[in-house]
Amino acid sequence: MSLSVPPPGCLQKPLVVPHRHMFGPGPSNVPPRILEAGAKPVIGHMHPETFQIMSDIKSGIQYMFQTRNKVTFAVSGTGHTAMECAIFNAVEPGDCVLTAVNGIWGERATEIAERIGARVNTIVAPPGGYFTNEDIEKVLMISFQPHCYATTGVMARCLLIYACRYNSLFLVDAVASIGGAPLYMDQQEIDILYTGSQKVLNAPPGTAPISFSERACQKVFNRKTKPLSFFLDLSWLANYWGCDDKPSRIYHHTGPVTAYYSLRESLTVLSEEGLENSWKRHQDVAEYFHQGLESMGLKLFVKEKSTRLPTVTTIVAPHGYDWKEITAYIMKTHNLEISGGLGPSVGLVLRVGLMGGNSSKANVDMVLAAMRDALKHCHKSKV
Amino acid sequence: MSLSVPPPGCLQKPLVVPHRHMFGPGPSNVPPRILEAGAKPVIGHMHPETFQIMSDIKSGIQYMFQTRNKVTFAVSGTGHTAMECAIFNAVEPGDCVLTAVNGIWGERATEIAERIGARVNTIVAPPGGYFTNEDIEKVLMISFQPHCYATTGVMARCLLIYACRYNSLFLVDAVASIGGAPLYMDQQEIDILYTGSQKVLNAPPGTAPISFSERACQKVFNRKTKPLSFFLDLSWLANYWGCDDKPSRIYHHTGPVTAYYSLRESLTVLSEEGLENSWKRHQDVAEYFHQGLESMGLKLFVKEKSTRLPTVTTIVAPHGYDWKEITAYIMKTHNLEISGGLGPSVGLVLRVGLMGGNSSKANVDMVLAAMRDALKHCHKSKV
Repeated sequence: MSLSVPPPGCLQKPLVVPHRHMFGPGPSNVPPRILEAGAKPVIGHMHPETFQIMSDIKSGIQYMFQTRNKVTFAVSGTGHTAMECAIFNAVEPGDCVLTAVNGIWGERATEIAERIGARVNTIVAPPGGYFTNEDIEKVLMISFQPHCYATTGVMARCLLIYACRYNSLFLVDAVASIGGAPLYMDQQEIDILYTGSQKVLNAPPGTAPISFSERACQKVFNRKTKPLSFFLDLSWLANYWGCDDKPSRIYHHTGPVTAYYSLRESLTVLSEEGLENSWKRHQDVAEYFHQGLESMGLKLFVKEKSTRLPTVTTIVAPHGYDWKEITAYIMKTHNLEISGGLGPSVGLVLRVGLMGGNSSKANVDMVLAAMRDALKHCHKSKV
Repeated sequence: MSLSVPPPGCLQKPLVVPHRHMFGPGPSNVPPRILEAGAKPVIGHMHPETFQIMSDIKSGIQYMFQTRNKVTFAVSGTGHTAMECAIFNAVEPGDCVLTAVNGIWGERATEIAERIGARVNTIVAPPGGYFTNEDIEKVLMISFQPHCYATTGVMARCLLIYACRYNSLFLVDAVASIGGAPLYMDQQEIDILYTGSQKVLNAPPGTAPISFSERACQKVFNRKTKPLSFFLDLSWLANYWGCDDKPSRIYHHTGPVTAYYSLRESLTVLSEEGLENSWKRHQDVAEYFHQGLESMGLKLFVKEKSTRLPTVTTIVAPHGYDWKEITAYIMKTHNLEISGGLGPSVGLVLRVGLMGGNSSKANVDMVLAAMRDALKHCHKSKV
């Protein structure tokens, strides 16, 4: 046999990556200290130094999530993988699941649970809507209630479900909010909570912090069937992360060690600032931004102030404009990413994320200037 | 509510990562140019520059795998995730699967297929053993035949299965060998092939090249049931990677963009050297290493020369010694990782990986000196 596919010419060009203002719903900009951490040399996934880094990450996530859960770690994947990890472990075929859907992530959670054979009920709110405790307090085995939807920018209200009362587990998707908005996993009796590295944490995408309460572990570790994914099997993952009481760790998969470095650094940045300071900064900056938008004559998609996310702002797509032209113009002219809607909110909104280090009044001014410029130069129909 | 978990003290210490010779079965050392590529700024997972980088990666993998398969891309995860991606997509509940097991990866493939409800038959060879075409050519729907087992260091012989004859798909796990040993996906009629970024490619762990033949796609895209994992669903992944004929790409998950940068760079390094040069270098270095080991009185675990892997060498655990003391001594004294066995080969072997840039005679000399030193200083029983 001989080679039939030659070396590709495209790889002869050097890798060039532009600097860009990442003000969409994620990934957000990664500060140099976090990028540099991720460029440190690779060591083994089972070396004691790596276990120490994983232990530091665990402590950092416990702080970020405000939890003392032993089973707290980072999934080797994105927020999406963490969602599958949560559902694959918590739900067995035939289990009842309630999903609260007000955007694409609720839809995906529904599909993930259906694929593994759960009996799924959904309650649906329109994009921009939310659910109250009363909406949720119905018969359920697992309630999947995202803390927030980046797709619509709504803070979930029902953060106190007393799921135990119904012998159900309470899952919260806090991918786009945690670290930038108050959330107390233990006090709010959340059973499974997860996020991604690339939002408020400002680390590259590729790791996803997750935590399981005692109650969640009770259910998961007493399943009748094995979780369908070996890769996401909590028994293995908990051991690999040193979260169980076993004397030694067994090889499960090769952890993305350099991604651990940058995740650890991002958690350090957050704990240096302090959670409450970070929450306040995001809130102040968001209010400043929202005022600026309204004074330009733009409308916020989420009417109730208290339900607006401080991390991702949804703006009603300006009347008479093609939203795609606006985002493209701003990217081209200002080297700045803002985005349209996702799933049910496509065409309805523009989304601007100012997360982690990106959340500053200077960045707000930059976005507002770019939007003013876009509204001046993009086509407006005469309707 | 108020904070109940304080910022962790451990994060106040700066991140320190040692430089280390990574001569175990992976991850291998990552050269500075690949680490630097991974530290470039984060841009969006749906930006045109990222799509171009993904397209370059696709071309690089097609070269590495020697395939023209359209559905060629990198899974956002480790080799293990790629294994699940292969099996989750190719196998439906009730399908017959034959796994050829001569080490931990065959065992895992068996378990993964069983978890999703396949009817699995296994043929088992002892660690260090292998299978012939005749062993395999039996009734089967899917044959899972790893190209190699890093756990035992054996090149699979049965690389020409004519799986089509049996209307079955031929899966090959080439995680620890491809790029360092000859493999021609198309000419060898392999239907699904995958590897990890952290072996011969010398990129950080976290991405896993994979390719599906036309026949495999026919099966996958005409399934009766949806794959159990949304995250690993080939229809979505193929679209996200621009491998289908759809006019636009739909958001699926947030790709680990910085890991794409380093993966692209690692594929560039391989195509600059050329596959055949890389294969020859690995073979020459392995033979030099094997001679050195034998001249020290050590025995190679795999008896037949032609079935030895040129990337990972398995050495019979030296008689009278505790293998753990040897690997620990070498780590402590020489800052160099070699490892013991895994799964069925634990206690039987030592494993030394010299992969990608690590495969050089200078590194062989370093390992041999370290082993000589260890055999002199570690405890030997008087048996």
